[in-house]
Amino acid sequence: MSAEVLAGIDVGGTNTKVLVATTDLEVLDRIDLPTPAHDGGDAILDAAEAAVRSLLDRHRASLAGVGVGAAGVVDPTTGTVLVTANSFTGWAGYGVTDAVTARLGVPATLDNDVNAFLLGEVAAGAVAGEPDVLGMTLGTGVGGALVLGGTLFGGPHGAAGEIGHVPGFGDTPCTCGQRGHLETVAGARGMADRYAARTGRHLGTHRVAEAARAGDPDAQAVFTTAGWGVARAVLLTAGILDVTTVVIGGGVARSWDLLAPAIASALADEPPVSGAAIRVEPSTLGPDAVALGAAAQVRRLVVPV
Amino acid sequence: MSAEVLAGIDVGGTNTKVLVATTDLEVLDRIDLPTPAHDGGDAILDAAEAAVRSLLDRHRASLAGVGVGAAGVVDPTTGTVLVTANSFTGWAGYGVTDAVTARLGVPATLDNDVNAFLLGEVAAGAVAGEPDVLGMTLGTGVGGALVLGGTLFGGPHGAAGEIGHVPGFGDTPCTCGQRGHLETVAGARGMADRYAARTGRHLGTHRVAEAARAGDPDAQAVFTTAGWGVARAVLLTAGILDVTTVVIGGGVARSWDLLAPAIASALADEPPVSGAAIRVEPSTLGPDAVALGAAAQVRRLVVPV
Repeated sequence: MSAEVLAGIDVGGTNTKVLVATTDLEVLDRIDLPTPAHDGGDAILDAAEAAVRSLLDRHRASLAGVGVGAAGVVDPTTGTVLVTANSFTGWAGYGVTDAVTARLGVPATLDNDVNAFLLGEVAAGAVAGEPDVLGMTLGTGVGGALVLGGTLFGGPHGAAGEIGHVPGFGDTPCTCGQRGHLETVAGARGMADRYAARTGRHLGTHRVAEAARAGDPDAQAVFTTAGWGVARAVLLTAGILDVTTVVIGGGVARSWDLLAPAIASALADEPPVSGAAIRVEPSTLGPDAVALGAAAQVRRLVVPV
Repeated sequence: MSAEVLAGIDVGGTNTKVLVATTDLEVLDRIDLPTPAHDGGDAILDAAEAAVRSLLDRHRASLAGVGVGAAGVVDPTTGTVLVTANSFTGWAGYGVTDAVTARLGVPATLDNDVNAFLLGEVAAGAVAGEPDVLGMTLGTGVGGALVLGGTLFGGPHGAAGEIGHVPGFGDTPCTCGQRGHLETVAGARGMADRYAARTGRHLGTHRVAEAARAGDPDAQAVFTTAGWGVARAVLLTAGILDVTTVVIGGGVARSWDLLAPAIASALADEPPVSGAAIRVEPSTLGPDAVALGAAAQVRRLVVPV
């Protein structure tokens, strides 16, 4: 008899990551493929299904369930994508879990990629086993998610965790049309804009990070401000929710060598009023986090605890 | 046979409020008395017990349970006061619920006054029946509490709701030693200081409110800033937690005619990114809120639902 595995699918605007994992969430194998984002939901799932079947063949495994994490706004209850970035065509409105179950004959779950990221890190990553955690993804934009008492907290209308778009982080205009949001100081786009405003040079955040490591004071200042913003988000969450464990992912977090001291310095200057110890960890699952978190989510449906 | 009633006790630094209510939380009667704050826990409870017995006699009622709300930091699990203001002597460390039960022979609960305030407003006040609510008390300081999914959310270490002491509200030094906290813009002390800084005149917030109503632009500016601060706290909570219902109490909220338009104007300038409708209500229980909320808390122990 073949071993049972879980599949996790991370549908991003550019790439789709598919992995299979044991029911203990050990990753067995993965396939990265370009997302056919402009060809509609059926094409996106055709590509993902082929990858899942290929991984199952390769490992002679049988499938227990499929978890999907998707960028954008989704309805986990109906398993439907609601709102997507412009990089997608025919994906908003698509019933993902029904289609996955029809194709692969197993239970499926859908959540947004930030929730899936946090579930992955809580299930098998940087904050494994922690019951109360703030997750932040510092990508082009900034996303947030909360696990409270061991489960995802979606809030009354499913919109909790929008730490990227609350005020109190300066006065720079945000992509959302307002000003002074965390995304303007700790998102990749905001950091690149900030570096360009200081120097006139347009570099991506990885190049800004290299410049900071080489001693460029403008690049260092961009990371200092990003760390200050992350620390402020941590203080807000610690103050309002008493949640003192934080995990940070996304492309900007890959420059953890620059971000960590900036966060620590800001928290040393302005500690939480409660005096509680703060723990801020970088993602340890890296590019697997969303897909593995999605697999962890479907595990609750298919594996008896 | 006599009717069963609940007693609620609100132990403040100056006054203790004692009320009895039906098990439907209808207030039957109340007694206000000075808190013998410097005479120790036994003296505080002597005074409260005498008031409870007097109210029971007056209404020929029998007692089902006693809820206590107390200023300061308390441990609801052990029913003990942990930290108090300097206005108290011999109250920190006092085992309140054990003493109440020994004196009156019924179950007792203890919580801090801000939690009790919010429970009162959710059980029988401005936000009756709402499952997800932020409560803020704008007194000398600013307190906060959260009800999520119908129950108080204390957070992992019991310190949730500290909305008065998170950053992002300007740069004025706060009594806690840090800067830019909500308390500096929307607490009574902070508002009086702000008015004095603008005018050189030292007035209490009620006098500042009178001046604002009479057209004093400095007094009006103090309320505009307070409303901006409250709106920002509402936005933080809506963004992070998706909680969009808010109830506001404390002395400053008694000038609701000035505060409400300032809050509404700030929220109109900067609406929540989610687009969710925000509901901000003033306390309707007023000075009964803490004691009635404490009674609502003990009701869960003694009345089958």
